[in-house]
Amino acid sequence: MNQSFDDERRWLQGTLTRDIPLGGAMELTVARLDAHGVTLELPLGANVNDKGTAFGGALASAMILAGWSLPRLLMRRAGLKAELVIGRCEIRFTRPVASGFQAFCAWPDQADCERFVRRLGESGRASLVLEPEIRADEEVAASLSAKYAALGTSGSPQ
Amino acid sequence: MNQSFDDERRWLQGTLTRDIPLGGAMELTVARLDAHGVTLELPLGANVNDKGTAFGGALASAMILAGWSLPRLLMRRAGLKAELVIGRCEIRFTRPVASGFQAFCAWPDQADCERFVRRLGESGRASLVLEPEIRADEEVAASLSAKYAALGTSGSPQ
Repeated sequence: MNQSFDDERRWLQGTLTRDIPLGGAMELTVARLDAHGVTLELPLGANVNDKGTAFGGALASAMILAGWSLPRLLMRRAGLKAELVIGRCEIRFTRPVASGFQAFCAWPDQADCERFVRRLGESGRASLVLEPEIRADEEVAASLSAKYAALGTSGSPQ
Repeated sequence: MNQSFDDERRWLQGTLTRDIPLGGAMELTVARLDAHGVTLELPLGANVNDKGTAFGGALASAMILAGWSLPRLLMRRAGLKAELVIGRCEIRFTRPVASGFQAFCAWPDQADCERFVRRLGESGRASLVLEPEIRADEEVAASLSAKYAALGTSGSPQ
């Protein structure tokens, strides 16, 4: 299991920083991936604004990527190919971030994950609502509520 | 007036790409600033995702910056210094973007702009709700509704 998470962590690191160049420009690293969720870690420098705190767009991008990672991994595990996109979302910026920060997203319940994979495989459409957040200095600094929709071809290979 | 917009456009270009390095990484240019609003222009390459379309975080960041630019310019014109931050916002991603794109934000009504400056000068607090959008191939591809809050010191110089 740990070996599998480690392989997935490396794959995700490549996807988020090479296939999505802005993730590379943000100097994002997949710091942790386990049964709780995924944690992306980002430095302040590449993500700073004119006030010396983290730019809201960088916080939004990091949360969008943390959330996207989980259904993307479910699809990869199930060998399902689909377009995975974010639809509507709401962001709350609650504290300024004056240091490096993490974007964390918890796995949904096991039943929700299984339903997502089953529906995508059967009908080629499935969605998951996720609530990633930004943590800095052990406080939550921003949160995102977003619906991720997967649109694919039933049972097609990865 | 045109001269003044041109000076502001150059100042904004520096602020959005040097003081906020992610704006530089996104290869953003302030394409237009006039009495209608501000238009930022961005290429697909630096902002692409793993599907070959624009990354949602890049669209969000471009809209956040387009919106931020307008109250920031009002503050600069009035010589008011304040922290200008985005609070809560809602984003709708409505179409995939497969080309370069623009982030446009219209000026609020003159009365709303005047109220923002007057309140910030008098009480050190003011806010503006703005609705920037992403345009690509002459279609709206995403929109943001965001409240920008300025917190400053009454009448302090820029």
